[in-house]
Amino acid sequence: MKYISVLGATGSIGTQTFEVVRSHPEEFRITSFSFGSNIRIGKELIEEFQPKFVSVATKETAEELKRTIQHPCLVYYGEEGLLEVASDPDSTILVNAVMGSIGLIPTLAAIDEGKTIALANKETLVTAGHIVMDRARRNQVDILPVDSEHSAIYQCLNGEKKEEMSKMILTASGGSFRDKSRQDLQGVTVKEALNHPNWSMGSKITIDSATMMNKGLEVIEAHWFFDTPYDDIEVVLHRESVIHSMVEFLDGSIIAHLGTPDMKVPIQYALTHPERLDVQGGKRLNLVDIGTLHFEKMDTKRFPCLAYAFEAGRTGGTMPTVLNAANEAAVDAFLKGMISFLEIEKCIESAMNRHEVIRKPSLDEIYEVDRTTRHFVQTLNV
Amino acid sequence: MKYISVLGATGSIGTQTFEVVRSHPEEFRITSFSFGSNIRIGKELIEEFQPKFVSVATKETAEELKRTIQHPCLVYYGEEGLLEVASDPDSTILVNAVMGSIGLIPTLAAIDEGKTIALANKETLVTAGHIVMDRARRNQVDILPVDSEHSAIYQCLNGEKKEEMSKMILTASGGSFRDKSRQDLQGVTVKEALNHPNWSMGSKITIDSATMMNKGLEVIEAHWFFDTPYDDIEVVLHRESVIHSMVEFLDGSIIAHLGTPDMKVPIQYALTHPERLDVQGGKRLNLVDIGTLHFEKMDTKRFPCLAYAFEAGRTGGTMPTVLNAANEAAVDAFLKGMISFLEIEKCIESAMNRHEVIRKPSLDEIYEVDRTTRHFVQTLNV
Repeated sequence: MKYISVLGATGSIGTQTFEVVRSHPEEFRITSFSFGSNIRIGKELIEEFQPKFVSVATKETAEELKRTIQHPCLVYYGEEGLLEVASDPDSTILVNAVMGSIGLIPTLAAIDEGKTIALANKETLVTAGHIVMDRARRNQVDILPVDSEHSAIYQCLNGEKKEEMSKMILTASGGSFRDKSRQDLQGVTVKEALNHPNWSMGSKITIDSATMMNKGLEVIEAHWFFDTPYDDIEVVLHRESVIHSMVEFLDGSIIAHLGTPDMKVPIQYALTHPERLDVQGGKRLNLVDIGTLHFEKMDTKRFPCLAYAFEAGRTGGTMPTVLNAANEAAVDAFLKGMISFLEIEKCIESAMNRHEVIRKPSLDEIYEVDRTTRHFVQTLNV
Repeated sequence: MKYISVLGATGSIGTQTFEVVRSHPEEFRITSFSFGSNIRIGKELIEEFQPKFVSVATKETAEELKRTIQHPCLVYYGEEGLLEVASDPDSTILVNAVMGSIGLIPTLAAIDEGKTIALANKETLVTAGHIVMDRARRNQVDILPVDSEHSAIYQCLNGEKKEEMSKMILTASGGSFRDKSRQDLQGVTVKEALNHPNWSMGSKITIDSATMMNKGLEVIEAHWFFDTPYDDIEVVLHRESVIHSMVEFLDGSIIAHLGTPDMKVPIQYALTHPERLDVQGGKRLNLVDIGTLHFEKMDTKRFPCLAYAFEAGRTGGTMPTVLNAANEAAVDAFLKGMISFLEIEKCIESAMNRHEVIRKPSLDEIYEVDRTTRHFVQTLNV
């Protein structure tokens, strides 16, 4: 039996984590979880999984929740509540599926507790990869990727020597606007941007797929996850998303991971590793039905956000924090109708251009850069 | 340093094995090898690699060779010579790249000596898989595949638990006649059959690719290599031969091996396993350049030899020996212009239909069935 805490229980990854747990009651038990403000789903999860405690975003939500639940359950809130869940002494695995840089401190707390981390929170590695991976190494803690690309790479490296890897090839579907030219992108709407061809995900990540920033953040994550130089990370446009990613070894052999676009597979793998379990209700990939797989060169002129991400990653220090914070603020402004789709990348470029990099930043410096960058982008868009 | 004996030195796999050895003199040394009658190449290999002894097909070839070589080198011949090479006390790896059922006894001799076997000789497992794998297990000897499909499967299983494999997917290019209908096949010539679209190989195996018998023999080999039930082995038509084969696991994850059509990669992997080395002069796979991969259902009506192979494998006992011997005799007759392309499969079907299966045959019984089957097919074609 594996005991699991979940941060971000009512989001896309969170609810699918509970589906995985529900399908294997003999393997997994939930001990605690956090969610933001979705009391309806949160309450259902509490009644079904009976955690010892939960945490929500605010004091108000906590009080409202307490009035509605029947299961006797402590309710924490805010950043302290997240830390309670992250350091829950009853769990050995933390699934970190919160969005944004708020996920960072709880990850570190869970590492200090020696928990295995199933990491879906991109910002943890993008903004503080040097701190997180160093802390994990010192505590001999495994950090397992939850998104499909890094889980694919992780699986391709099973039984292999990482130093024999010559190249990592991340695949990108191209997102909702992959067949549009730069000119076509001028007048696209939020609704069009949210229509991803392959994956059903939250709105922030769907916009990030359309700008290719999602792949950019994944490149930086991959750098930290696998300690891989940026020169050895390649991105290929693969519109079917059937090959989730690949590793090339020095003998020219390429090992690839293929599957259906089902996030339950990487989520479950992070929980069962090094074992595998049946994914219930999971559709099997049928290559004959799909028939054809396409591969195209990634055009960083068409997708400048990917170039910014490589640049931020290579620059290092606080630059990836700027990239990420500027992107979050800009996507937020786009989703609120305040800026156009193409202005997202302009916000990021402006924020990066004005930033003076701090090498090896502390957590406080990262948070300060994060805050000032968001503020800068918001003032750009007033 | 790894010390290597090679059976079948002047054939396609043999010469590429020497290329691999030549490119890594710090890793590999040749201690002995056999070849048939190609004195020109054999002599060059002797001068370059300076083995302690070699073996050739006949006494006459041995005597002719002795007159021409300068390097002091013992020359054996015949089946006894093969056994000398296979049990060479100075080598720890035997590369078995001879063609036909003559490769079986030397494989067993090398297993008894505790050598690692790099196996390119299909007949070893097709006709006597039950004897060979049992002997290897008892002697704790590794048998490593040399052809691209089984090497792919072997690599896809790295770090995985075989009992978590749900399916094995062998890819087939379709051979030189893949775009021809059954009717088109009526009048095809030997020259047309020898024109394989992807791989440059010997003539027997090129014909076997066109009839799909090559894939059929690989299915039976895969059954023995990986102890996999026939129901869990699938064949998919994949004309680009970029994905060399795949393994599906019970969570729906598929791990695939991709590469260029370069036999030096699986040959070298069998010699370096579990490590990898740079393949010198090897071209890297570039998926963007290739652009598109296709997958089609395998049609066993179009390729009845594949159905015969599955049937022979499932029947077991001496039936795979009949399949293989009838095929060898029929392909030989086709290459000599004695029968048409479509008569190859008829010979195999006739031989299988008349055979009474011996369960768990001894080596003597296998040889006897092999001999009588060849004789039967030859009399068919007089």
